[in-house]
Amino acid sequence: MSRPPIDLRSDTVTRPSPAMRKAMAEAAVGDDVYGEDPTVQALEARTAALLGKEAALFTPSGTMANQIAIGLHTRPGDELLCSGTSHVYWWEAGGIARLWGVTSRTFLGESGLLTLDEIEDAIHPDDPHHVRTRLVTLENTHNRGGGRVHPIEDVRAIASWARSEGLAMHLDGARLMNAVVASGVPADEWGKSFDTMAICFSKGLGAPVGSAVAGSAQAIRQARRLRKLLGGGMRQAGVLAAAALYALENNVERLAEDHANALILAEAFSEVEGLELESQVETNLVWVTVDPSLATAAEVVAHLKSHGVLASALGDQTLRACTHLDVSSDDAEQAAEIIRAIDPEMLAAETVVY
Amino acid sequence: MSRPPIDLRSDTVTRPSPAMRKAMAEAAVGDDVYGEDPTVQALEARTAALLGKEAALFTPSGTMANQIAIGLHTRPGDELLCSGTSHVYWWEAGGIARLWGVTSRTFLGESGLLTLDEIEDAIHPDDPHHVRTRLVTLENTHNRGGGRVHPIEDVRAIASWARSEGLAMHLDGARLMNAVVASGVPADEWGKSFDTMAICFSKGLGAPVGSAVAGSAQAIRQARRLRKLLGGGMRQAGVLAAAALYALENNVERLAEDHANALILAEAFSEVEGLELESQVETNLVWVTVDPSLATAAEVVAHLKSHGVLASALGDQTLRACTHLDVSSDDAEQAAEIIRAIDPEMLAAETVVY
Amino acid sequence: MSRPPIDLRSDTVTRPSPAMRKAMAEAAVGDDVYGEDPTVQALEARTAALLGKEAALFTPSGTMANQIAIGLHTRPGDELLCSGTSHVYWWEAGGIARLWGVTSRTFLGESGLLTLDEIEDAIHPDDPHHVRTRLVTLENTHNRGGGRVHPIEDVRAIASWARSEGLAMHLDGARLMNAVVASGVPADEWGKSFDTMAICFSKGLGAPVGSAVAGSAQAIRQARRLRKLLGGGMRQAGVLAAAALYALENNVERLAEDHANALILAEAFSEVEGLELESQVETNLVWVTVDPSLATAAEVVAHLKSHGVLASALGDQTLRACTHLDVSSDDAEQAAEIIRAIDPEMLAAETVVY
Amino acid sequence: MSRPPIDLRSDTVTRPSPAMRKAMAEAAVGDDVYGEDPTVQALEARTAALLGKEAALFTPSGTMANQIAIGLHTRPGDELLCSGTSHVYWWEAGGIARLWGVTSRTFLGESGLLTLDEIEDAIHPDDPHHVRTRLVTLENTHNRGGGRVHPIEDVRAIASWARSEGLAMHLDGARLMNAVVASGVPADEWGKSFDTMAICFSKGLGAPVGSAVAGSAQAIRQARRLRKLLGGGMRQAGVLAAAALYALENNVERLAEDHANALILAEAFSEVEGLELESQVETNLVWVTVDPSLATAAEVVAHLKSHGVLASALGDQTLRACTHLDVSSDDAEQAAEIIRAIDPEMLAAETVVY
Repeated sequence: MSRPPIDLRSDTVTRPSPAMRKAMAEAAVGDDVYGEDPTVQALEARTAALLGKEAALFTPSGTMANQIAIGLHTRPGDELLCSGTSHVYWWEAGGIARLWGVTSRTFLGESGLLTLDEIEDAIHPDDPHHVRTRLVTLENTHNRGGGRVHPIEDVRAIASWARSEGLAMHLDGARLMNAVVASGVPADEWGKSFDTMAICFSKGLGAPVGSAVAGSAQAIRQARRLRKLLGGGMRQAGVLAAAALYALENNVERLAEDHANALILAEAFSEVEGLELESQVETNLVWVTVDPSLATAAEVVAHLKSHGVLASALGDQTLRACTHLDVSSDDAEQAAEIIRAIDPEMLAAETVVY
Repeated sequence: MSRPPIDLRSDTVTRPSPAMRKAMAEAAVGDDVYGEDPTVQALEARTAALLGKEAALFTPSGTMANQIAIGLHTRPGDELLCSGTSHVYWWEAGGIARLWGVTSRTFLGESGLLTLDEIEDAIHPDDPHHVRTRLVTLENTHNRGGGRVHPIEDVRAIASWARSEGLAMHLDGARLMNAVVASGVPADEWGKSFDTMAICFSKGLGAPVGSAVAGSAQAIRQARRLRKLLGGGMRQAGVLAAAALYALENNVERLAEDHANALILAEAFSEVEGLELESQVETNLVWVTVDPSLATAAEVVAHLKSHGVLASALGDQTLRACTHLDVSSDDAEQAAEIIRAIDPEMLAAETVVY
Repeated sequence: MSRPPIDLRSDTVTRPSPAMRKAMAEAAVGDDVYGEDPTVQALEARTAALLGKEAALFTPSGTMANQIAIGLHTRPGDELLCSGTSHVYWWEAGGIARLWGVTSRTFLGESGLLTLDEIEDAIHPDDPHHVRTRLVTLENTHNRGGGRVHPIEDVRAIASWARSEGLAMHLDGARLMNAVVASGVPADEWGKSFDTMAICFSKGLGAPVGSAVAGSAQAIRQARRLRKLLGGGMRQAGVLAAAALYALENNVERLAEDHANALILAEAFSEVEGLELESQVETNLVWVTVDPSLATAAEVVAHLKSHGVLASALGDQTLRACTHLDVSSDDAEQAAEIIRAIDPEMLAAETVVY
Repeated sequence: MSRPPIDLRSDTVTRPSPAMRKAMAEAAVGDDVYGEDPTVQALEARTAALLGKEAALFTPSGTMANQIAIGLHTRPGDELLCSGTSHVYWWEAGGIARLWGVTSRTFLGESGLLTLDEIEDAIHPDDPHHVRTRLVTLENTHNRGGGRVHPIEDVRAIASWARSEGLAMHLDGARLMNAVVASGVPADEWGKSFDTMAICFSKGLGAPVGSAVAGSAQAIRQARRLRKLLGGGMRQAGVLAAAALYALENNVERLAEDHANALILAEAFSEVEGLELESQVETNLVWVTVDPSLATAAEVVAHLKSHGVLASALGDQTLRACTHLDVSSDDAEQAAEIIRAIDPEMLAAETVVY
């Protein structure tokens, strides 16, 4: 194949554009461990303002941003409540237990989105036998739940209850800007429900590296200590922060295009017999269930790859396609065509030689 | 009230009998941290033989026995699979995460009893994002699931799968002897499915203090190290081991009486409108759901207490009654009578002054 | 040999006397996890009063008592200051780091006894690179330092500084009553310098099992949670507490005899060429350095054993002898005679066949 | 002051040069969490070759590289041996205990450089009371010890002993290339003594961000898991790796200039009465003890700052000056002049208004 494949595996695969690279190359920098990198400081201030928080801290990854927040809100022997498919529980290497000694109590949610009904009886009594329930973490959009937007009224109900019970609230907002664009609810409006929020610059926003965690000034002072512990203190990190600032300036509104492109893919998938959307597509993620009578997810992914489309098999019968900055609407249309052409007999034949 | 209350709160409340106390007073002892207490050694050997294991280690509590086993089988960043209502997850102060850095993945089970179907897809792929699935812990009888006996064929199916997948198996057998007596399956037959087993001498068996963890000789050598870490190394512990030995000699077969007495209570509860058994009663535990239209569990418990019967409210609408060595069949009949006499109007009246 | 050996290995080897066993056999008991064991409660109250604290908690071992206290005063990322030869650092299986995530900063001390001079510059600045200095733990008497009594004025100076710096103070008082008897300073006078104190009933005091940790009422409520975590919650623990109460009643003043007997041994050791006391003998411990030209400590211990005297080799060239309840002054005189008779040539001959 | 200050605080303050920025802007990148960033892969291969190891892993910081290595070699309850002034123990936020549950046993060393004599008796016996001695970590050059090079024969002696005892060896080589240039011993020759090595690109080598840990292929596979746990997985990290590659190509040999400049500063300090070099200056670090009769370190630093020279006060009476890429020999001469002009009376006068 002469042209590069259309890469729908994740919105983490985006490469910095020439303009973003230029911003990085020209960034003013300093030693951020000494608090002297002006570009990092500008990014942290801008992120705090965006999320309606007093302060923010730049981190090398979203995992670190989330884990720092969990470390802030808990002590060993505490418990957090989250969806059983949330990133913090499922894809962060067991850090909740391993780094902080904290127990996870998981709930199913609808497409991973928790409601107050589901968790309001979850608080343990104050008794030496039990962990101390201390924190709720939500994820918006919820990746494993089909990239759906958490309804704001559900978030508010949980937040209000959490406050009344003395629980902290953390948002894994790796894809919060997708939720903002899809829902029209501004980031700082979401922020009112949370004590801390993590946001990722390296997914749909297209920066090469970096996330941030935001919260009160006091929380972020503590966060700085935890970032050092985890090895996330970087020196002239302004070269990365410049890309994130560029992303916030230029790549937020265009997320609407990714959402439109995801719908193109979703429609294509839904037309193939044996493939079914896991849930309604609201943002840039398309989760698809593969009927075993058709093939395994790995087989469908291999077939698409042989036709120049990369997707992710994330379970025996589960695949995910994801739109982003480096997928144009033409790419989406082309991919949709290839998806529509999926043919059980063709798949079966390929499987033989697989 | 002139006579002492009938205490159905737990089988942990039993007091050592005069004969047991005599055994304790006459026990040969030595410094067990030096490996020189003959009575502890006798108990450990006998426990190992009972469970079909090479070795056993005496501990001050069942919690310590379970936690040592979990520490033996895991490293930080590992995951165990268990029922969400199991003692190790629910009543051991979050030790799984806090002591060992291990993630719990919980399943509903039927009355808390897991089946292979429910867990066989649970193993994480070998990927840096994920915890390493390493251990299955079962609990038999399962307290929070109504004291039911785990069907041996279900246990064997899980064990066979676990072995083929390289997972370790641990049994929380705090009430294993109840399962043995109720099922007729000997302890060492259960033992074939597990790498390690915990057994408690201080519940239905009636000893004042102590549990043991059993496994391979090598595992128990490591267990000794973990017991020291947790502060469970005791000196002349033979005074306690003597009671446990006495219990194994004298108090196993009589568990059948406790089971019969539990059925007496169960029948009484099931006759009261607004009270419903959570599950079939197979051993010495009776879990009851209180209909909110009748009262709260705390109100029912308060009512029973005022009539000389102690039970436990273990949830807003959940109560538990438990038979044991210090509850005779007469006691059970008396308690049943008091239970049957529960009357919604009377409860309502009491609630007013409560 | 027809008579049993004179066991000078440790004061942990004492066996309960008939009178102590009688107290145990007659103890009123209840379920202490439910807070219903009257004998445990009596012991806890008496211990608290003895140490001048609001409350105390019974534990299965001194290690657990110490580790609970460390867990109370610290959070992960904190640091404690202690002697490099202290029990908490050296003989508790690394629990400081492993259980609590706490860094130990160790000091040499004189015979392990710290002075303010040595530690007063140790507090880390408040900086993300550094641990937070939070706790000082002392040990009195200091086992590895020859069982010496920590001079009260040194303890007071450290405590006064610690308070002014916001550091907590914990005493490992496993052998505090030896210090009390040797110094004439009452236990509650020592207590004024500490936030928490651990005391052991199973060393010189002669109870078979058990220690306690004492502190403010609030601290001890938290301690109960940590005891549950570590698996130290015991049910009818009154059978053990009765022995400890007996010990406090009957076995404190007689520690003076142990100290006198230790001096008999010390004098004997000091008369042997090639053996040297590590420090002045003030209580019941005699630490001896073995000159390599004479033998190894293991060889001296083997020689003594063959003559009916048991001592501990606690280093290549270090041995310890310890007096206690089960060593009479006659025993001490006999052992002294055997010690004095140590003869380099005899040792050399034995070594050949060793 | 019109010209910018001469910044001698640390070699972490260097800013990327235009040529380095160009390399970053042009770097080929991919998603490194998917193993697809060619520039990161090139850097890892080159680093592995440089250090004589099978594989290497890029990390956001030297702290993360060191902590990953410690995590690789240990389990909770293990112990490592290190200098009490080493970076891993002193400046990494207590991660040894907090992240891994590992106890640190610290030694004084000469200028922080350990010898076999000092540590060869340190291995604990295999006994439940004790931690398991498992790892030796050295630091070369040793920052807190005056930036001195660890004599290669001392390193080899320790390594040989460690291997015979089954201990792992880790090198914190944050400034290893300084040691290489100063000693003439190549990096892979140092590497022969170590199982794992950390190297920093962001100190003297002048890259803005990043370190690496190197070891066997198997160790680095495990390291990838730990990096994910700590939140060090970055996406298009090639933008940073390009700078590190540039640094390895262009900035190694020139470290000799930094060493020459450090000698210029050292000579100046040694001429001031009341200032004394802590140790012989062998590389780019100059540690100075300030006599209390002259001033505090903070006062000297404030004085220098007011004259356009930045240094670090790293103790009440300790200051450090550091040369690097952004300090020319002219800068060093100018700074030396300002240092030589330090005058007790002038300092005293300033202190008044301080």
